[in-house]
Amino acid sequence: MPNHRFILEYDGTDFEGWQRQPPGHRTVQGALEDALARVTGAFAPVAGAGRTDAGVHAEGQVASAELATRLPPEGLWQALNAVLPADLAVVGLERAEPGFHARRDAAAKVYRYRIWNGTERSPLRDRYALAVSAKLDLASVTAAAAHLRGTWDFSSFQASGSSPGSAVRTLRRLELSGSPGGEIVLEFEGNGFLRHMVRNLVGTLLEVGRGRRVPDSLPAVLAARDRAAAGPTAAARGLSLIRVIYGIPRNPEELERRGS
Amino acid sequence: MPNHRFILEYDGTDFEGWQRQPPGHRTVQGALEDALARVTGAFAPVAGAGRTDAGVHAEGQVASAELATRLPPEGLWQALNAVLPADLAVVGLERAEPGFHARRDAAAKVYRYRIWNGTERSPLRDRYALAVSAKLDLASVTAAAAHLRGTWDFSSFQASGSSPGSAVRTLRRLELSGSPGGEIVLEFEGNGFLRHMVRNLVGTLLEVGRGRRVPDSLPAVLAARDRAAAGPTAAARGLSLIRVIYGIPRNPEELERRGS
Repeated sequence: MPNHRFILEYDGTDFEGWQRQPPGHRTVQGALEDALARVTGAFAPVAGAGRTDAGVHAEGQVASAELATRLPPEGLWQALNAVLPADLAVVGLERAEPGFHARRDAAAKVYRYRIWNGTERSPLRDRYALAVSAKLDLASVTAAAAHLRGTWDFSSFQASGSSPGSAVRTLRRLELSGSPGGEIVLEFEGNGFLRHMVRNLVGTLLEVGRGRRVPDSLPAVLAARDRAAAGPTAAARGLSLIRVIYGIPRNPEELERRGS
Repeated sequence: MPNHRFILEYDGTDFEGWQRQPPGHRTVQGALEDALARVTGAFAPVAGAGRTDAGVHAEGQVASAELATRLPPEGLWQALNAVLPADLAVVGLERAEPGFHARRDAAAKVYRYRIWNGTERSPLRDRYALAVSAKLDLASVTAAAAHLRGTWDFSSFQASGSSPGSAVRTLRRLELSGSPGGEIVLEFEGNGFLRHMVRNLVGTLLEVGRGRRVPDSLPAVLAARDRAAAGPTAAARGLSLIRVIYGIPRNPEELERRGS
């Protein structure tokens, strides 16, 4: 059966996360599998690169599926977008080499977290940013972020109750942009992310920004390997999976992206 | 009773427009008047600078109301934002001089219309932009826009069935930014806007962009003073009231805005 690679954009607000759940639960994987079944006439399981939580958005989630269809990718793409709900769209679709698996083959992922630091609520940003009205010391956040970049055991930032296994991950980029009182964006690139890891990193960095932790306390938080040592889990609404990077560039556009 | 001037931000998606309607209809004016009644203990009518349609957003709607309250503006502001729904917020509040009326005193308004010109739907832009996948000739749109700037009888762009009265308005700015295949923004500044005027201008300009009208046909559309001569009404979702400009600057911030 021909293998396929999808790029997906979704507004996670009204989804109960990526992973398919029993009937009655609205998930991204479920919506995509249902649309595929409708278009191809056969059920096929879809693998997603990142199992995004409820409320988390995606600009560039990647998924793979082997499909018993003779439709060319362009026809399939168009048919899918015609039946998918308004908050989920296929924004890229191509044949993939046999055996390609969106999650297992992912070399790195990029996540973005948006914070609205205005003194008042912003209804037009409400779905896509966490509102934090407190004054934030961004120089301290930047200093704290420097301690987190690199290869570490991120157990302290993993959702409690997560399945066992190595919590060592490489965070090769953690960049802050924006300014106090306006929009602030944190961008994370790493070879893998533990459950709630980005949201727990954001919650901890926000405590630094508010002066409740000092930047130099971060190495001890990492060393503790204890969820209780880190800050709270920041809300899902601010988080978006921006893109997934694969080990072997598959087309010129991806080569270009990797260079950026 | 002390007069007040509000600046409001709202996501218009789930409102049936600005203007209060019978119970059971959710409107911006209704939500604000209800919140004011709850906070001050007395009903007071609120006047809005622009009577935005259902689905139209606002970053800087201005409203005025005389309120029987001894709360200082800061206290009122905070109390209001605590009871207003998530999709409506007060982002500015101050005492206004007696007699100030947000609509009657408005000297000009700025509206922005966002178009998503990607080949595929974009769920993350869906609430705030009109999706137009057709290729658009932006040079032609720019040429057409030049014919619309100035003082004209805009009857051709007024919702049919509108109340009689002069349809002469001055459109002092109509600017296009963005690029084909991406986000395109049209910004309108004028001394007043007829019902559906911005949306009808956008619908007509999009016909030019698609090659269904030539830019030089616009003067004849204006001269016809006939709604049937212009294009369709573009969807509300792309439209946002950005700010309202008053004749006599009331504070340094407004002076600065006027200078921009």
